[in-house]
Amino acid sequence: MRLFDFDRAPNPRRVRFFMAEKGIVIPRVNVDLYRHEQLSQEFLAINPAGTVPVLETDDGTYLAESLAICRYLEALHPQPPLFGATPREEALTLMWANIVENDGLLAVAEVLRNLSPGFRNHVLPGPHPYPQIPALVDRGRQRAGQFFDRVGQQLLHQQYLAGDGFSFADISLLVTVDFAGWVDINPMRTRPSLERWYRQVAARPGAQA
Amino acid sequence: MRLFDFDRAPNPRRVRFFMAEKGIVIPRVNVDLYRHEQLSQEFLAINPAGTVPVLETDDGTYLAESLAICRYLEALHPQPPLFGATPREEALTLMWANIVENDGLLAVAEVLRNLSPGFRNHVLPGPHPYPQIPALVDRGRQRAGQFFDRVGQQLLHQQYLAGDGFSFADISLLVTVDFAGWVDINPMRTRPSLERWYRQVAARPGAQA
Repeated sequence: MRLFDFDRAPNPRRVRFFMAEKGIVIPRVNVDLYRHEQLSQEFLAINPAGTVPVLETDDGTYLAESLAICRYLEALHPQPPLFGATPREEALTLMWANIVENDGLLAVAEVLRNLSPGFRNHVLPGPHPYPQIPALVDRGRQRAGQFFDRVGQQLLHQQYLAGDGFSFADISLLVTVDFAGWVDINPMRTRPSLERWYRQVAARPGAQA
Repeated sequence: MRLFDFDRAPNPRRVRFFMAEKGIVIPRVNVDLYRHEQLSQEFLAINPAGTVPVLETDDGTYLAESLAICRYLEALHPQPPLFGATPREEALTLMWANIVENDGLLAVAEVLRNLSPGFRNHVLPGPHPYPQIPALVDRGRQRAGQFFDRVGQQLLHQQYLAGDGFSFADISLLVTVDFAGWVDINPMRTRPSLERWYRQVAARPGAQA
């Protein structure tokens, strides 16, 4: 197996954190997003969406999408379980992971990509050019704020996002909180429950992966 | 178990189609989105995101997000498998389901919600008001077109979206194709592989659920 990766990007970090929790070590291929290597003919043949991470499996399948990659690794390396241990826990993990990805990670990306000159003609990932829409910067900040309110509420009653156990949903949320820092959003300042949770999760060795 | 549902909305249809394929019959509670019942205090206590579908499980857990609900139902009713039968098939199903949801379903929703007067102050699902952004109508159409190109390519070589077997990814795609019709996008006209696939999947009894 090989992981097509880029150190600074949030989605590959989700997979690296996940692998570190399981003790999985595999070769990594650096795809330099700053040089637009993800849009090369060579990489688009691997993943037409032009995104990292991509996992190349031992049978030569290319898997994109962080969730799909992590579920695959979970099946091969079930311990420790990071998608819960029961159908209920698994469903709650998938539910929260989806909420984090759609309402959190994408909201922060909406701010960054519509704001930063580096994304001027690449406001959406992939090979197709899209111009920036300035109204999406403020909208993204609002969405991100509402998202952090919601997870802050959830973390008032729960140790971890999807329940009592640390899971892929927490990995996704930690990466999203750090990603929000790129656009000067610090969601912890006014949300003590999120800060308590963050300290706990950021202390795990996998958070450095 | 009970399903909080709305007949006309695309996401609940994914769950109904899935349940029909498995022969699962449970009571349904209608949440009338046309009357904004999803934004009532009562429903927001069930799902703060203000979205359907929501599955109330036998232990009283409320599960939101179509993917999470369907994975839960798959664990309780494994036959026939609709998330593949191997780790590889499962990963490909999750990968394509994510691509359909993010690049297809959300792109079509971007067109509809920024265009239709009914969504004027509700351009994003949930309780928070967001104004329409006219530039997103054209952007959504472009994104949808590129998405349908991609799945059309995939269906040139494959019987079903995630491989040889019918899966949750096909359910998500069928619902997205029909949803695109709401904004006068007919992706089959210029993509024969998609049309071949559509005829096959639309003929399943579950497509009427």
